[in-house]
Amino acid sequence: MHEYRTHTCNDLRAKDAGETVRLSGWVHSKRDHGGLLFIDLRDSHGITQIVVPVEESQFKDMAHLRVESVITVTGKVVVREAGQFNPNLPTGEIEVRAEHIKVQSSAAVLPFQVAGQESYPEDLRLKYRYLDLRRDKMRRNIQLRSKVIASMRRRMVEQGFTEFQTPILTASSPEGARDFLVPSRNHPGKFYALPQAPQQFKQLAMVAGIDRYFQVAPCFRDEASRADRSPGEFYQLDFEMAFATQEDVFTVLEPVLTGLFQEFTPEGWNITEGAFPRIPFEQAMADYGSDKPDLRNPLRIKDVTEAFKDSGFGLFARITAEGGRVKAIPAPGAASKPRAFFDKLNSWAREQGAGGLGYITIAEDGTPKGPIAKNLEPARIAQIVATCGLKNGDSVFFAAGSDKNDATSKFAGQVRTKVAEELDLIEKNAFRFCWVVDFPMYELNEETGKVDFSHNPFSMPQGGLEALNGKDPLDIKAYQYDIVCNGVELSSGAIRNHLPEVMLRAFEIAGYGPEVVEERFGGMLNAFRYGAPPHGGAAPGVDRIVMLLADEPNIREVILFPLNQSGQDLMMEAPAAVEPERLKELSIKLDLPKPKATAGKSTATKPAPQTNQAG
Amino acid sequence: MHEYRTHTCNDLRAKDAGETVRLSGWVHSKRDHGGLLFIDLRDSHGITQIVVPVEESQFKDMAHLRVESVITVTGKVVVREAGQFNPNLPTGEIEVRAEHIKVQSSAAVLPFQVAGQESYPEDLRLKYRYLDLRRDKMRRNIQLRSKVIASMRRRMVEQGFTEFQTPILTASSPEGARDFLVPSRNHPGKFYALPQAPQQFKQLAMVAGIDRYFQVAPCFRDEASRADRSPGEFYQLDFEMAFATQEDVFTVLEPVLTGLFQEFTPEGWNITEGAFPRIPFEQAMADYGSDKPDLRNPLRIKDVTEAFKDSGFGLFARITAEGGRVKAIPAPGAASKPRAFFDKLNSWAREQGAGGLGYITIAEDGTPKGPIAKNLEPARIAQIVATCGLKNGDSVFFAAGSDKNDATSKFAGQVRTKVAEELDLIEKNAFRFCWVVDFPMYELNEETGKVDFSHNPFSMPQGGLEALNGKDPLDIKAYQYDIVCNGVELSSGAIRNHLPEVMLRAFEIAGYGPEVVEERFGGMLNAFRYGAPPHGGAAPGVDRIVMLLADEPNIREVILFPLNQSGQDLMMEAPAAVEPERLKELSIKLDLPKPKATAGKSTATKPAPQTNQAG
Repeated sequence: MHEYRTHTCNDLRAKDAGETVRLSGWVHSKRDHGGLLFIDLRDSHGITQIVVPVEESQFKDMAHLRVESVITVTGKVVVREAGQFNPNLPTGEIEVRAEHIKVQSSAAVLPFQVAGQESYPEDLRLKYRYLDLRRDKMRRNIQLRSKVIASMRRRMVEQGFTEFQTPILTASSPEGARDFLVPSRNHPGKFYALPQAPQQFKQLAMVAGIDRYFQVAPCFRDEASRADRSPGEFYQLDFEMAFATQEDVFTVLEPVLTGLFQEFTPEGWNITEGAFPRIPFEQAMADYGSDKPDLRNPLRIKDVTEAFKDSGFGLFARITAEGGRVKAIPAPGAASKPRAFFDKLNSWAREQGAGGLGYITIAEDGTPKGPIAKNLEPARIAQIVATCGLKNGDSVFFAAGSDKNDATSKFAGQVRTKVAEELDLIEKNAFRFCWVVDFPMYELNEETGKVDFSHNPFSMPQGGLEALNGKDPLDIKAYQYDIVCNGVELSSGAIRNHLPEVMLRAFEIAGYGPEVVEERFGGMLNAFRYGAPPHGGAAPGVDRIVMLLADEPNIREVILFPLNQSGQDLMMEAPAAVEPERLKELSIKLDLPKPKATAGKSTATKPAPQTNQAG
Repeated sequence: MHEYRTHTCNDLRAKDAGETVRLSGWVHSKRDHGGLLFIDLRDSHGITQIVVPVEESQFKDMAHLRVESVITVTGKVVVREAGQFNPNLPTGEIEVRAEHIKVQSSAAVLPFQVAGQESYPEDLRLKYRYLDLRRDKMRRNIQLRSKVIASMRRRMVEQGFTEFQTPILTASSPEGARDFLVPSRNHPGKFYALPQAPQQFKQLAMVAGIDRYFQVAPCFRDEASRADRSPGEFYQLDFEMAFATQEDVFTVLEPVLTGLFQEFTPEGWNITEGAFPRIPFEQAMADYGSDKPDLRNPLRIKDVTEAFKDSGFGLFARITAEGGRVKAIPAPGAASKPRAFFDKLNSWAREQGAGGLGYITIAEDGTPKGPIAKNLEPARIAQIVATCGLKNGDSVFFAAGSDKNDATSKFAGQVRTKVAEELDLIEKNAFRFCWVVDFPMYELNEETGKVDFSHNPFSMPQGGLEALNGKDPLDIKAYQYDIVCNGVELSSGAIRNHLPEVMLRAFEIAGYGPEVVEERFGGMLNAFRYGAPPHGGAAPGVDRIVMLLADEPNIREVILFPLNQSGQDLMMEAPAAVEPERLKELSIKLDLPKPKATAGKSTATKPAPQTNQAG
C-alpha cells in the first residue's frame, strides 16, 4: 500500500465499499458526535468524510488535532447510512472508517479560517497566502488561470505560432513606464533593466526570420499599483507576425479569443464570434464616448449640437456659440421613471465634475417634458427625437461643453454607461469584443503647442513616408489598434514601422532628431537596415483576461503569489534590506532620502521620447 | 491577392505550374546568368527559386540588390527545365518567373554571411544576433528548443501536473549562488531579488494544497559563465509533488524524459526506457568514480587495494600501507595496442596531476606483461584478473593514492572515461539515464573539522528525527537524488523536509541555531507550521536538455538572445549606464571601485547557511 494514498479525496464511491484504502489530506473540519469524530478530509481533488472512533486509545489525540493539520488515514470504505448521503459531494455516498491515522504535520492556531466564506483583510491573506490559496474561491481562480494560459498556448500553436523566450535581464526599453533596474556586478556602474514588454525582442525575432512568434511573457513595470495591474510583474500573451497586414493580425487573434472565452464561460453565454467589429477611433469617440467601447451597452451617443445652435435653451445655445458640442444619450423607456431617477443622475453628474445632466422626456402621448423641453422650440425637439431615434416613453440626456481633448465626448461616454446601468440595459452573460482602429499617429500637446506621438511611435503611419511628408501630422492615422472586450482594453497592437527612413521622419515630426533616435533605439533601427519584413502584432493582457473570466475586479485574486498594493511580498518579506557587502560587490551604495523630506515626492523626469503602450 | 504572399517559400510544386503567385522573403543568394537573375528567395519555411529578367527596365535595380534584402515577388510558377531540378529543395521542381518585385527592405552590407557554413567570432554573431539566427543551424537549434519546451509541457500535463507562474520579483533565496538584486523605488534602501530557482515558492504551493505543480521557470544566478550555464538567466523544468515518495518522483519523471528524448532523436537511437537504474552515491563513486556516471561507457572500476597490500610492487604497497586505495580500470582488448598507446595515457595522467598511469597487460597467451606485472606476485595478478573479469588480450590500468575526498575514485573515473574514449567503447547514438540516490546528508569540512550539509539542507534525512538524534551525522543519507544523462547532471532533487522540528535539528547538527534558521528561512518554516504535506520534486535544466538533443557544447547556441560570456547583451547594449536621476529615484548611488584597485577581486562573503543546488 502506498505510503500516503491509494486514492485522492475525490475518488471513492459506493462501489468501493468494503475496500481498505489510504487517503491523505488536510483536516477541513471536525464534528464530534460523542465517541465518533467526523472529519472532512480535503485534498486538491475533493473531500471525503472520515469517521474516527475517538474512544479507542490509538485515536485519543485526534480530538485535539487542529483543523488544517495534514493526516494520512487508513481504513475501510463504508456506505453511509440512509439519509446521511451528502448530495453536494461526489464522495457523499460513502465514508471511511479510520483504522489507522498518521499525523504528517500538525497545524498551529490559524490566523484565519480556511473553511467557510468569511472575508479577511487582504494583507493578512497575502502574508499567509499558502492558507488563503487553500480556500475554495482562490483555488478555483488559480486553477482557472493555469487552464486559461494552457489554452492560450494551444490556440496560438494551432494558429501556426511558436513560443520563444526572450531575455529578462536586458536593456532599458522605450515603453514609457519606469524600468526596474538590476545592477551588474561584473560591469561596475552599469545596470540591466527588466523588460516592460518584449517589444523590441519580438520585432528583432521578425528581423531574424521567425514567422510567427508568441510568448506568455512576464513583463515588469515599476509603476503605481492599480486594480487591474500588479505593481511589479504581469503577463502578456505577446505575439508578432511577419508579412502580416492589420487584417491578418485580427484574423489570427479573433478565433483565439472567441475560443478561449467560449471554453471558460458557462453554456449560454454570448461571445462575439467571427470577425469582431472594427470601429475607427473617431467613431468610437463619437458613438461611445470612449476608445474602449462596451458593446454590451446598446446605447449610442448622438451629436445634437445643431439642434441647440441659437436655440431658446440659453445655456446650450451659449455653449454651441462658443464652439462647444452637445451630445445626446438616449434613455429608452425612462419617461416612466420618477423624478428621483433624474435627480439622482443629475447629482451623479455633478460628482463627476459636470454642471448637471439635462434631459428631455417624451411622454407616452408624445409630449416633450422637462426643463429643457420648456425652452426649446418644437422643431428642434423633433430634430433631436429623429436624430436619436426616440420613441414615446423614452428620455434623452445631454452632455454639453467644450470638446477640446474629447472632454464632452468622454463625459457623454460616462453618461452612456451610467444610464445603461441604471436602466439595466447592459447585456448579461456576454463578452463583446471589438477592434478600435485608425488611431491618430500624432496629437497636439496642449501645453507646448507641439506635435507628440499619440501612442506607439514605432507604429507604421498609414500612407507611409508620403503621408508623413505631405499631410498635416494631426490628420495622419497609424496602423495602431486596440482589442477591447466589455469596455476593457485587453491590448493595443500595431503594424510596425520597419523602414528606418520612415521611422526617422516620423520622429522628426515629433521633434526628435536622428541623433536621439539612433541613440535611444539604435539597436532596433540598425537591425532594420539588414532586411526587415513588414510585421505586426499585439499583446493581450493575460491577467486581465483571467480577471474577466473569473469575474474578479482585483488582479491579486488571480495571481498565485502577488505583491500587495505597495509592491511588497508580505509572505517572503520582499523587498528587504541587504548587507552592505552585497551592495559593495554591485558597486552601489544607499542614497536614502533625508528623513525630513516628503517621502512620497519622487523626482520623476520624463524620459524622452515616450510611448504609452506596448503591444 | 494578399499584399505579401499567397504561399510560403516552401509551398510550390510542379502541380502549381501556370498559377500566378506572390512570395515574400529574404534574398538568400543571387546568380546572374546574363540577362536572367536567379534569386533563392528564403523565408522561415523554405526556399524558392525566382527568375528575374533583369534586362526589362522595371527590374534594372534588381542586379544591385544586396543579399538579405526583403522582397515581395509576384509571378508565374513554371516547371524547371529537365536537368535543372534541385532534389535538395522541396520546391526544386519549379521556379517563379518574376513579373513584379517590391523591395520591402533593402539590406546594407552584411557584417557576415547568412548563407553558407562559415564560422565567425561569437561576439560578432551575438551583436548581429538577428542575422545569426537566419543561419540554418541556429534556426534549427532555436526551433528545436521551442519544440522541446512545448513537448515538456504536454508531457507534464499528461502526468497530472498544472503549470503555475511563481514571482520573479521576490526575496533573496538560500540557493548558494549570488542573487541579482533589484532596488525598490517605493521602499528606499530595500531590494527585491530575482529567484535563483522557484524552490521556496513551489514548496509553498505544496503547503497551499496544490498537488502537482510544474513550471518552465526562468531562474537567475549572478555567477560566472560556464559552457553549460548562462551568466544571467536559464530555464528549469521545475516540478513538485505532494504526498509523494522518492519512487513517485522517479516514476513521474522517467516517462517524461524517455518520451522527450525519443521524440527528438532519430530512429534507431537507444534511450533508457522504463525504470532508470538507481545507483546509490557510494556505488556511483566506487563503480564509476563519479556521481554523474555515464552509462554509455561499459567500463566498471574495481577496487584492487587488497591485491597490492604488502605486495612486491613497492609504490602501491606503500600507498596501501598508508591507507590509500588502488582502483583498477579494465581496458578490454588493449593488450594488442602498441607501447605508444600506454605512453600516451601515461602522459595524459601526468597532465591531470597524477604520478602516472600504471597498467598490466594480459597477452593473448595469458602472460601478464608490463612494468607492474614484473614486480607483482602471480597470485595477486590472478586476483586482479578475477576481480576485474579480465580476459586474455585485455589490459587493466591502476589509479592509486589517498582516497580522501574520493580523490583516487574521482581520478579512476577520469581514467574510465579516457580509456573508453581511446578504445572507442562509448555507446553511440544513445541517451543513458540513471538516478543517483542516497546522497549523504552531511560531509566533514576538512578545513574546519566541522560537519556541513553536503547538498540541500532542506532535504528530508532518511530515518527522520530518529536518525538525526541517534546516528553519526556522516552516516545519515538524505532523500536527495540526481538525474544523470550520458554523464551530464540534468537536475538534483529531493524529498523535502516538511517538519519544522526535524529541520531545526538538521540545521543544529550543521552548527546553525534556531535563531539563524528562523531568520533566514522563517517564511517557509512558518508555513510548515500550518499543515504541510510530505512533498518532493526536481528541476531538470531545460537548456542542458536542449544542448544534449542539439549536440551543442555551448549553451548560447540554443538560446534566442543570450548574454555573452561576460554577461553582456551586445545587440541591445546591456548592461548600460543610467542617468543619475534614475538612481536617485531608487535611493542608490554608484560606489565604483577605485581605478587603481584590482578590478576582478570581489569581496564575496560566504552567506551562511548555503546550499549547492536547487531542484
